[in-house]
This record gives sequence, structure tokens and C-alpha cells, in this order.
Amino acid sequence: MALVNEHLLKLPENYLFTDIVKRVNSFKVTHPQARIIHLGIGDVTLPIPKACVEAMQKAAGELGNPNTFRGYGPEQGYDFLIEAILKHDYAAHGIYFDANEIFISDGSKSDTGNIGDILRHDNSIGVTDPIYPAYIDSNVSCGRAGTLEKDGKWSNVVYMPCRIENNFIPEIPKQRIDIIYLCYPNNPTGAVLSKSELKKWVNYAIENDALIIFDAAYERYIQDPDIPHSIYEIKGAKKVAIEFRSFSKTAGFTGVRCGYMVIPKEVTAATLEGKRIPLNKLWLRRQSTKFNGVSYITQRGAEAIYTPEGKEQVKAMVQYYMDNARIMKKMLSKTGIQFFGGENAPYLWIKAPDNQTSWKFFDKLLYEAQVVSTPGVGFGPSGEGYVRLTSFGERHQCEEGIQRICQCL
Amino acid sequence: MALVNEHLLKLPENYLFTDIVKRVNSFKVTHPQARIIHLGIGDVTLPIPKACVEAMQKAAGELGNPNTFRGYGPEQGYDFLIEAILKHDYAAHGIYFDANEIFISDGSKSDTGNIGDILRHDNSIGVTDPIYPAYIDSNVSCGRAGTLEKDGKWSNVVYMPCRIENNFIPEIPKQRIDIIYLCYPNNPTGAVLSKSELKKWVNYAIENDALIIFDAAYERYIQDPDIPHSIYEIKGAKKVAIEFRSFSKTAGFTGVRCGYMVIPKEVTAATLEGKRIPLNKLWLRRQSTKFNGVSYITQRGAEAIYTPEGKEQVKAMVQYYMDNARIMKKMLSKTGIQFFGGENAPYLWIKAPDNQTSWKFFDKLLYEAQVVSTPGVGFGPSGEGYVRLTSFGERHQCEEGIQRICQCL
Repeated sequence: MALVNEHLLKLPENYLFTDIVKRVNSFKVTHPQARIIHLGIGDVTLPIPKACVEAMQKAAGELGNPNTFRGYGPEQGYDFLIEAILKHDYAAHGIYFDANEIFISDGSKSDTGNIGDILRHDNSIGVTDPIYPAYIDSNVSCGRAGTLEKDGKWSNVVYMPCRIENNFIPEIPKQRIDIIYLCYPNNPTGAVLSKSELKKWVNYAIENDALIIFDAAYERYIQDPDIPHSIYEIKGAKKVAIEFRSFSKTAGFTGVRCGYMVIPKEVTAATLEGKRIPLNKLWLRRQSTKFNGVSYITQRGAEAIYTPEGKEQVKAMVQYYMDNARIMKKMLSKTGIQFFGGENAPYLWIKAPDNQTSWKFFDKLLYEAQVVSTPGVGFGPSGEGYVRLTSFGERHQCEEGIQRICQCL
Repeated sequence: MALVNEHLLKLPENYLFTDIVKRVNSFKVTHPQARIIHLGIGDVTLPIPKACVEAMQKAAGELGNPNTFRGYGPEQGYDFLIEAILKHDYAAHGIYFDANEIFISDGSKSDTGNIGDILRHDNSIGVTDPIYPAYIDSNVSCGRAGTLEKDGKWSNVVYMPCRIENNFIPEIPKQRIDIIYLCYPNNPTGAVLSKSELKKWVNYAIENDALIIFDAAYERYIQDPDIPHSIYEIKGAKKVAIEFRSFSKTAGFTGVRCGYMVIPKEVTAATLEGKRIPLNKLWLRRQSTKFNGVSYITQRGAEAIYTPEGKEQVKAMVQYYMDNARIMKKMLSKTGIQFFGGENAPYLWIKAPDNQTSWKFFDKLLYEAQVVSTPGVGFGPSGEGYVRLTSFGERHQCEEGIQRICQCL
């Protein structure tokens, strides 16, 4: 008889965002007239840049023409997109990679999940807490997270708390960890790491022979010129870090699906006998077995982000969302409520007043302000007592949503 | 120290199609003037249908408009595409599914690889031999295939030979197997299963509590009205089979990337304690952790395949490739060489004369006819002594390629 992967059964039945949808739906039943404003899920609302639309329409046309048709593309991605990434995202900042150190994908959710395929099932993992839930869930699925303990933590996961007391900056762990997940600018807290903070992590990884999974999906939202956009701005990082980038929040590609991974040739992990294996080559092997590349049309769309028009349009888009954040922060600051983030990230991390739980405050905002937030506890134990608001909404929605929140506080 | 997944290291260094590219490149160095014709890799050459191009251009335009913009789509796929699939691919043939039994994906290579995530690492697997190599490689990657034996076979894989003696139709295995891979119309042999043959497999799976992974990527190429297009034409299959479909060969989507999986609610596998778990729910959980859906643009393109214009254009495309196959077969039949397939599939399976090995015959065709084929042994031990030719080329290329082959035989 065929047997299931029982690790998958360990996952809690409900996924954070499914839970939210359920609560919102019950609210709608009893409040059919309510005009709900969604400031919860981190999805964008602005249309994708004109440059990208035009590039994709042209690319679709090429596939319909016998002289320009293309079939299977390279699993790693087309050179035109890889070259644009190397030039604009890295060389322009003094960081140099070869083309085969970049892997184009359908987004960071797939990438951060699939990267586990090339790593042993019993590596220990370390996560900042709170954290994007899919990092842990994908490790649970293959058994790497261990078992769920009574305190809501997984046995093989080291949680690095990010709380008010440490300004949401995790402390370097005292023990060894094999694989560390870092996401900066951070989802959900909106915190960023300075160069000196990030350097501590790279040094830790070098000293402890650890691997850093660095998710930089929100790097475009960094406003402060001193904050690093890439982990490779830190010396030595090429030996210990894999970086993930996404076009979802950069250019509104949440429905287009494109991102990329940087695996420097220097990054290795070991066999049980201690032989060092380059992860770049291993990932290529994984991809050529289980992946067949990203749509040509999508890759042409992503390439357009790097044209002069595309750059301007992306800049305006990021500016719009960060203006939302500024407006939201300004209004919130009049209420006396404690909140964080929104400076270098599209997320505001709000402390629930009177030590309310995340879900209680979530319900209060839903029932009294008709605003949907995301309960912080859904991102991990240290998220308890917070909710996350995003600045990805339309301007008038953000304004009205925050106004209603301010009134109900 | 971070440890690698050592199962991945068991995979032979080179992938079949990479090996071919290497041999062709060495040939080019010594024969720079040769006009090589590629009848090897199974990639299409006709442009995608006009209906699909227009639908994708329209969809790209929608994403660039604030009133019609869409962000994250459903992980399972958009209803509009699922409804079209249910109606045209199944209900039209008397097979009925609910919308949540269909999962839209970026193609069957990803799907047939990723499905392993929901199954235990020590299920035994059965494959027809020869077979599409990625099925085995994805099982090797997670340890499920066991270890590579001296005879080139994996220890936990049951090979079901498809040879001249059994007309390339595999016999029902005498032992129990947990998971069985079937691909019909077959890549690489071009063989098909009649209803009564397919029924034997469904019955075997029911009796042995096995799971069938049924890859129907080439179902559009079936010409004979008695050959089943879907495994669900067989009674009882909904309990034991997952079906994979792809738009790659149906509509030239190899570079667009879209396919789908059918997981009926009735299909289950067991926990070690014997509890039955529906695989549909388990796959949804896997997808919501590690996947974020297929591009909206791509899904609109796929939907257009089911419009009246799209259907006509797809039909003409399939007809063109099958006409290629007919022409190729007609010419080959004059040479006295033994060949198979090409009746209900775009593949011709050619027996190398004089008991030559696959690679020897491959070299002969490359050096004497400047035609690239695919060595049959690359698809498994029983493929030794064969090469595969595809009818996916342009008409004049297929004609000239076969003409040259006929001359050198």
C-alpha cells in the first residue's frame, strides 16, 4: 500500500491566511452592509509597470510568430534577464557574480520551500521569531522541523525572539545552528539590519559553518542609504549565504510570478564524511530534475523592470506604498499606540493595547473598524500581542482604514 | 555544519539531454559546415495558437490597468481555467470532477517531481522501461529509488520492460508495488494502452492498494477512437490514480509553462498505522506551503485553448505534427528498418540495425546523416538498441532529416 509523507500531517490544519478569511467571512454574515478594508494580506494593489506590460505583450506576440517562436527555455533562466540582474542589482553596487550563480524562478515562496530539497532532513534550523510561516512549514513537511512541542514551537527549530526589548533585532544564538533564515527588510516587523548587525550574522555563519537563507524580497523598500540591500555587501557572505529576491513586491508581480535566487559558487555544505559540496551545482541538478524554467513572457516582463522606463515606474510604485506607510504612521502616532516598521519596509507592526492577544485585537479591529489586519501570533510565538498592517493598499483605503482604527482605539 | 541531501549526489553527473548536447558540440567542432537537423529533443516548433497569444496579451493589459489588476491568484488555479478543463477535457467525455480536484501548475515536469513530497520516502516504485528519466531522478533525489546497482537499475525500483516481444506493452508485475508510473501515449516508445490493457492496471492498483501516477501529456496525439485519453475512463480509477496533463505538447506551451494535475477526492494513501489519508487535501497543503500559483497571463492563455478558435488551432497543430510522423514513417518503411510508434504519439522508436547500441547508432546518424536523435538507452536499460525520433520538427526538416537517415541506412 502506498504510504503518505506523515510529516505533512504534522502541519496544523489551518494556514494563517485561511484562518483570517474564515473569520472575515463569519463577520460578513452578521454584518452584510459593512465596507471592509483589507490591510492584512501582503498583496499589492497598483497595476504592474507599463514597461512590463508592453514587454510581455511583445513576448506573447513573438511566441505566436514562427520566426520568433521559442520552446523550452533554459532551466536557470534566460541570459537576457540574468544579465540585467547581474548588472543592475549587483554590479551597480560593486557586487559581482557569474551568470550561472543566478537562478530565475516563479517566486520566493517556491524557492525558499524548494531549497530544502538539497539539504539533509536533519539539519537544525534557526528562525527569527516572528517569521513568514512558510519557512517553517516547508521544513515541517520534510521532517526537518522535528515535532511540535506544547509551547507551539518545533523541536528542531531554534527561535530567535525579536521583541521590543531588543528593538526587533535578533541576538546571535549561543548554540550552533546549521541553517538560519533571515528576512530583511523584515516581514512582519518591518525591522531592518544595519551593516554591522548583518556582519555579525555572516561572521557567526563562517565561525559555525552555518548556511544563511537570506530573503531580500523587500529590499526595494529600503529608504535609509546605510542599510544593506544584499547580504553580499558583507565580506565573506559569498561563502555562507544564499540570497532570494522577488519581483512580487518590487514590481507588482504577485500574480505574474517571478523571482530569483543567488547561489554563489563558494557556498558549500558537507556530506556526513565532511566532503564539501558546492550548493550551486546541487541546486542546478535539482532544478533540471524537477523544474522546467519560467515562462519566456514572464522573463521578458521582469527584464523590463531594469529599463530606464521600468526603473522609473518601479520607483514611483515603491514611493506610493511608502507614502502610504508615512501617512499611516503619522495618523497612528497621534493615538499613543505603540507601532514599529514602515520606515524601510511596507509593514507596520502594531502593539495591541492593554496586553490584548493578537486575535483579540484582530477581532476588535474587524468588528469596530471593519479593518482586516494580520494577527502577529500567526508569525510565531513572539508575534503574540501584535498585528501587522500593510501599506500595499490603495491610498484612500489606507487613509480610511487607519482613520477608522484611530477612532476605535 | 549544514549537511547536504546526499541522495542528490547519487544521481549520475550527466543528464541525458546534456550528454547529447556535448556530443553534438564535439561533432560541430570537427564539422563546422554541417547543417545539423534536430529530431532528438521533444520540443515543439510551431508557434502557439493565435487565440492563446491574444488572450495573453489581453491579460497582460489587464494587469497594467488599475481597474482590472490582479495580485496573488489562488494556489490551485483560477476558476475560469479549471471550469474549462472540467467541461472540455472531462465532462465532454462523461467524466465528472469537482473544481477542487484540479490543480493548475507550471507543467508536468514540476508536478511529477513534486508529487513525491506527499508520499513516504520508502514506498516502492514501478516504472515502465524505457521511461522519461525525470520520474526516476526525482525519486532518487529523495532517497526513494534506493541505490544504483551494477546493472544500471535502482534497488527500490521495479522495472517493467517494454520490448518488441511484448509489443512495448508492460506486463502486470507479479509482486506488489506501492507507486506505479505510467505514461500513455508513451514517451519514448509511442505505444498506447487499449482500454482493456489500462483496465488491468487499474485493477492491479485496486487489488494491491497501489497508487498510479498517470502522465497523459500526449493524449491529444491519440488518433484511434478506441484508445482512452484519460485513466478515468476506466471504472475504479478515481480511487487509485492521479492524472497529469500538460499544455506543452497540446498547444506549444513548452516555453509558456502550464499543465495540471487531477487528484480525485477518493484517492488515498495510508499512514503507517493504516489510516487512509486523502491525497487531494495533502497536495493542497503542500501547494499552499511551497507554491504560489501560475501566472494569471499564462492561465488566460491556457483557457483560450478551449475556445472554438483555440480548439481549431490546436487541432491543426496536432495534425501538422502527426502528418510529419506519417511522412517519416512512410519514408522509413522503405528501408526495411524496424520502427514503432508514430500512430498515436509524436514519437518514433527506431530499432538500431545489426544490434548496434543506442549511442553507436546515435553517432552513426549524427556523423553520417547529421541528424540528432535521442539514444533509447537514456530512457532505461530496455531502451538499449533503440533511438527516439520526434515529429515535432518543421516539415522540411523532418523530410530532409528522414531522407538523410534513409540514405545512410
